[in-house]
Amino acid sequence: MIIEIKESSAHKAAELTSLAKAFHITYLGKSYLITGSGLKEVPVALEAHTEHHWVFANDIQLASKKFQAEKREVQFGNITIGGQTNNTILIGGPCSVESEEQLRSAAELLVDMGLSTLRGGAYKPRTSPYSFQGMGLEGLQLLAKMRQDYGLNVITEARDATHIDEIIEHTDIIQVGAKAMYDQGILRACSKIKKPVLIKRGFGTTLQEFVQAAEFVLSGGNENVVLCERGIRTFETGTRFTLDLCGVAWLQEHSNLPIILDPSHAMGYAYGVNPLARACVAMGIDGLLIETHPNPKVAKSDASQQLNYDEFRKLHSDIQKVAQSIGYQIV
Amino acid sequence: MIIEIKESSAHKAAELTSLAKAFHITYLGKSYLITGSGLKEVPVALEAHTEHHWVFANDIQLASKKFQAEKREVQFGNITIGGQTNNTILIGGPCSVESEEQLRSAAELLVDMGLSTLRGGAYKPRTSPYSFQGMGLEGLQLLAKMRQDYGLNVITEARDATHIDEIIEHTDIIQVGAKAMYDQGILRACSKIKKPVLIKRGFGTTLQEFVQAAEFVLSGGNENVVLCERGIRTFETGTRFTLDLCGVAWLQEHSNLPIILDPSHAMGYAYGVNPLARACVAMGIDGLLIETHPNPKVAKSDASQQLNYDEFRKLHSDIQKVAQSIGYQIV
Amino acid sequence: MIIEIKESSAHKAAELTSLAKAFHITYLGKSYLITGSGLKEVPVALEAHTEHHWVFANDIQLASKKFQAEKREVQFGNITIGGQTNNTILIGGPCSVESEEQLRSAAELLVDMGLSTLRGGAYKPRTSPYSFQGMGLEGLQLLAKMRQDYGLNVITEARDATHIDEIIEHTDIIQVGAKAMYDQGILRACSKIKKPVLIKRGFGTTLQEFVQAAEFVLSGGNENVVLCERGIRTFETGTRFTLDLCGVAWLQEHSNLPIILDPSHAMGYAYGVNPLARACVAMGIDGLLIETHPNPKVAKSDASQQLNYDEFRKLHSDIQKVAQSIGYQIV
Amino acid sequence: MIIEIKESSAHKAAELTSLAKAFHITYLGKSYLITGSGLKEVPVALEAHTEHHWVFANDIQLASKKFQAEKREVQFGNITIGGQTNNTILIGGPCSVESEEQLRSAAELLVDMGLSTLRGGAYKPRTSPYSFQGMGLEGLQLLAKMRQDYGLNVITEARDATHIDEIIEHTDIIQVGAKAMYDQGILRACSKIKKPVLIKRGFGTTLQEFVQAAEFVLSGGNENVVLCERGIRTFETGTRFTLDLCGVAWLQEHSNLPIILDPSHAMGYAYGVNPLARACVAMGIDGLLIETHPNPKVAKSDASQQLNYDEFRKLHSDIQKVAQSIGYQIV
Repeated sequence: MIIEIKESSAHKAAELTSLAKAFHITYLGKSYLITGSGLKEVPVALEAHTEHHWVFANDIQLASKKFQAEKREVQFGNITIGGQTNNTILIGGPCSVESEEQLRSAAELLVDMGLSTLRGGAYKPRTSPYSFQGMGLEGLQLLAKMRQDYGLNVITEARDATHIDEIIEHTDIIQVGAKAMYDQGILRACSKIKKPVLIKRGFGTTLQEFVQAAEFVLSGGNENVVLCERGIRTFETGTRFTLDLCGVAWLQEHSNLPIILDPSHAMGYAYGVNPLARACVAMGIDGLLIETHPNPKVAKSDASQQLNYDEFRKLHSDIQKVAQSIGYQIV
Repeated sequence: MIIEIKESSAHKAAELTSLAKAFHITYLGKSYLITGSGLKEVPVALEAHTEHHWVFANDIQLASKKFQAEKREVQFGNITIGGQTNNTILIGGPCSVESEEQLRSAAELLVDMGLSTLRGGAYKPRTSPYSFQGMGLEGLQLLAKMRQDYGLNVITEARDATHIDEIIEHTDIIQVGAKAMYDQGILRACSKIKKPVLIKRGFGTTLQEFVQAAEFVLSGGNENVVLCERGIRTFETGTRFTLDLCGVAWLQEHSNLPIILDPSHAMGYAYGVNPLARACVAMGIDGLLIETHPNPKVAKSDASQQLNYDEFRKLHSDIQKVAQSIGYQIV
Repeated sequence: MIIEIKESSAHKAAELTSLAKAFHITYLGKSYLITGSGLKEVPVALEAHTEHHWVFANDIQLASKKFQAEKREVQFGNITIGGQTNNTILIGGPCSVESEEQLRSAAELLVDMGLSTLRGGAYKPRTSPYSFQGMGLEGLQLLAKMRQDYGLNVITEARDATHIDEIIEHTDIIQVGAKAMYDQGILRACSKIKKPVLIKRGFGTTLQEFVQAAEFVLSGGNENVVLCERGIRTFETGTRFTLDLCGVAWLQEHSNLPIILDPSHAMGYAYGVNPLARACVAMGIDGLLIETHPNPKVAKSDASQQLNYDEFRKLHSDIQKVAQSIGYQIV
Repeated sequence: MIIEIKESSAHKAAELTSLAKAFHITYLGKSYLITGSGLKEVPVALEAHTEHHWVFANDIQLASKKFQAEKREVQFGNITIGGQTNNTILIGGPCSVESEEQLRSAAELLVDMGLSTLRGGAYKPRTSPYSFQGMGLEGLQLLAKMRQDYGLNVITEARDATHIDEIIEHTDIIQVGAKAMYDQGILRACSKIKKPVLIKRGFGTTLQEFVQAAEFVLSGGNENVVLCERGIRTFETGTRFTLDLCGVAWLQEHSNLPIILDPSHAMGYAYGVNPLARACVAMGIDGLLIETHPNPKVAKSDASQQLNYDEFRKLHSDIQKVAQSIGYQIV
């Protein structure tokens, strides 16, 4: 349940905090109290303070359209996505930061194309200890350098809670990876800041659990949350994962959070990234994450799914037309 | 392996048939021999007759781009899909044929919108014996009546082999349902005719098995096969199934068969059909199957996912723009 | 809903049939009426004839423990399974009938081990048209010969409705294969006979749908139905399928049908069949289907998962001890 | 590849470390070098130091039977599992530590039954921020108190890397939860200690990835790793998860690590825990994790799947017989 506090009670923070605690309720700034969806009636002790309240069938509450019908706006630097903007942001860059030269070439590509946001992995959540694990802090510093040199926003992934402070410090948008999205160490750290947080859906995660991960960040006080669908694991092995666009339609219907899609990881093969990116854009989404590498064949991770720069430019051109056909624009 | 017979040997049908049998090889009209992909070298006895041969990694052979790189053309009445046409056919109609009045209203809607092909189920493959099982032969006759009255092509689903002859007799396009696509009684009957056959992917079926079902029809002598993706079963239950567009990209890359998509069954909820249909069209596909009903709330099956006629017209208008943006047209 | 007819009304078959039709109700011999679970109250016109009625949450009705709490008994020849028997029947034999010699060796093995029931596929539901499709009618005749020569019960699989009459004629137990379990042509034919029917769960089939397939046979009048779990398709590819023993526990709790398990198909590798068979038996099940072949390496289908005869004898010995430890016996 | 260093080279740690680094190879104490499975030939510079080497198809190396055929032994206090012991350890206790009284009652139950190891969650990895999150440090201290008062080994779960040091300090066996098993912060911390580590399989995790998580701990220097299968997420929703016993057979064939099973979480319903536990034990496994609560109905988490104490005693009695039937004993 979400309870909106009366303006006349808003100054009684101490009393409210105390009451809230008694009912296992979180006191959220901006005059809201929030508790589990099991509570269906306003506690008597809180009635006098209650302006309005919302009851929910499950623990999707702050992210629910029943609480706030309009899609939330989130700022990626000076770019706004969500809300009424009809913007679809195209985020490009390599899977892993491998060297300054490689990252600089991606940054220059984006600048040349008029794009604003650079992705690159520094802490790679590899499933084998014997694979390339990323450049770590050095990678983060290279991303920060690109921001400084080219005025780009940078986004990178937190693998686990041990380096979440570094990530928060060096990047503009914090990506919570698919394998880390249940990590409360990361989610709670992200809830205490104001930087935008992009949460990837785990490949074994239901839509309900996915949005509940966002509730961790929202209920902790950070409203700048974006969901990212990147493919779920199914019985089909011809492709790496299965991009769940039915799930995207569900999220658009039930949640007020902006949605970014990652067709590169879902498909796992470069040949499918362009048609899938067109499909995503045609749904009216808020952004795309696309992996691109100056020479995919020698990439240290995800070699098969990264686009070369020509393919990336072609994708940009193709999705612009699709976006336009539904009244959106690629930014 | 597929073996193309030399022109000089083409008249030696008896000898070829006999040789073919010896090697467990099918003799396909149009001068091709075909056998399992396990055979990697032309048998010595056939060498003198061999013009060309193709070796395959698996039993996707006639449907493979390695055998024929160009997408196949298939005729739905006087509409051509596939090949270089860039046509995306929009097929509409109710889930189940329920009455002449209901079916006639759908037929008139299609005619009014300039569309050519009417769908409707007569034999419903319900999972419970206590659900509405369809009108059976009477439903088929109503479909045939609509064809006669409105000049529409009609498509309906074969549930099992007991009524496949009736289906073949009364309809223009034979639909092999998701639950029936392993049914060799149906597939073999379809391979002996020339009418187009639309094979739906089973919800537990791999892409490999899906295309192999088409191989049953192709290798039996019917080249007019269309694949239809309609959602696979995954752990996600917020939607009815999960539409596998990564799989569609895979099929476009590996198979030469036209592809039609059914977002209605995949989603299970009317609200998602329009955005998903736009996504499908943006990929450059050959057709869409959309369920529409004059009053979905009272439909005898799949009530939640059928569009009313206004929603169907809106979908038509929306996908036309998307199709245009990628150089396709809705027919 | 299931309605038990009063003894005083039992002779009014014509009236009951007519009333039943009016309410879309099936009139089942033995004085029961049955309709979809949507009906929650006895229609007024039937009240006077109603002795007792059962309301259900879903269309699992005749197979539900809420209708009949005791597990049903089914006869495989002179062997009874289910009920209070605590019998676990071990059914052995090759995946495919390949020759009289091969089948005879399996029959002799069973006889020597004191077992009663021989399996063997005659119509193989292969996913590729280029694989071995089984010996067909000739295979059925070989099975019938083994019955005559050795007094064994034989079980084989119906692939599609075109040959269901042959199967019914030549075998003692009709197996409805995993790919055919939605096939109403087969299910309805099986509902008109009294021979036992073993229904395999489709690899993409929910437990609810699985039991509803049994309802087709039960509500048609054949009470001799056995369920067979044989593995579902999941994301895991290290094994062929995933044997769903949680599902078996669910079936034991909710359904009154005997349950037979097929670990060979689930695992796909001979090394796992013995430990899985032990696991199955420890749950207190009614039977096991195990594939065995005189020389698995040269088997025409499922070569990797068939046990050789020594392994089959070892399995028999191992599961006898496990059965005994829970108060069951292998028959 | 794993390289065993010659005894004559064992003292040249500095040189070996330097060589190892040059080839991206980890230098493992006890005279082993290890690198990714991509390396198939011993580098020339290392040849002179190489006593023996093992090549692998994938990154399951230290955990592979190809490296060490015998199952590893692991100590849980004074109980040994794995190796040739034929011990199946029964670990019991509540899902969540809720109070001293509750935990003490579980501890006394175990002592009374002659069992040695107590489980209980202190940091609960809940998917909703509005659910009970566990007692945290206070819960850990209660577990430690039980160890002191009753001489029990205690095991609890690390939810994320922020509290892994606390967990390591207060417990005897560290459980890496299903949602945390990709967490390198946790895995790397566990690799630096000698306490046993029980890694649960993620519900969307392949067997290959599962064992690779163990490789993180093994290659970091901690050999005391145990795998725990607890159900994977499939399309079936009648049960909470699907216990993957085919996967267990795969692990027994390919890996040298002891295996503990958790049927409580897999099933999600108390009624299935006993038959599934019997099934697990019949496979010859190294342990069981069973949730038990003095009054499951009021449990703060997983109420439906916890056994009451009578059910837990019954389970113990039942599995002892099954274990005995295959030559194992419950400890």
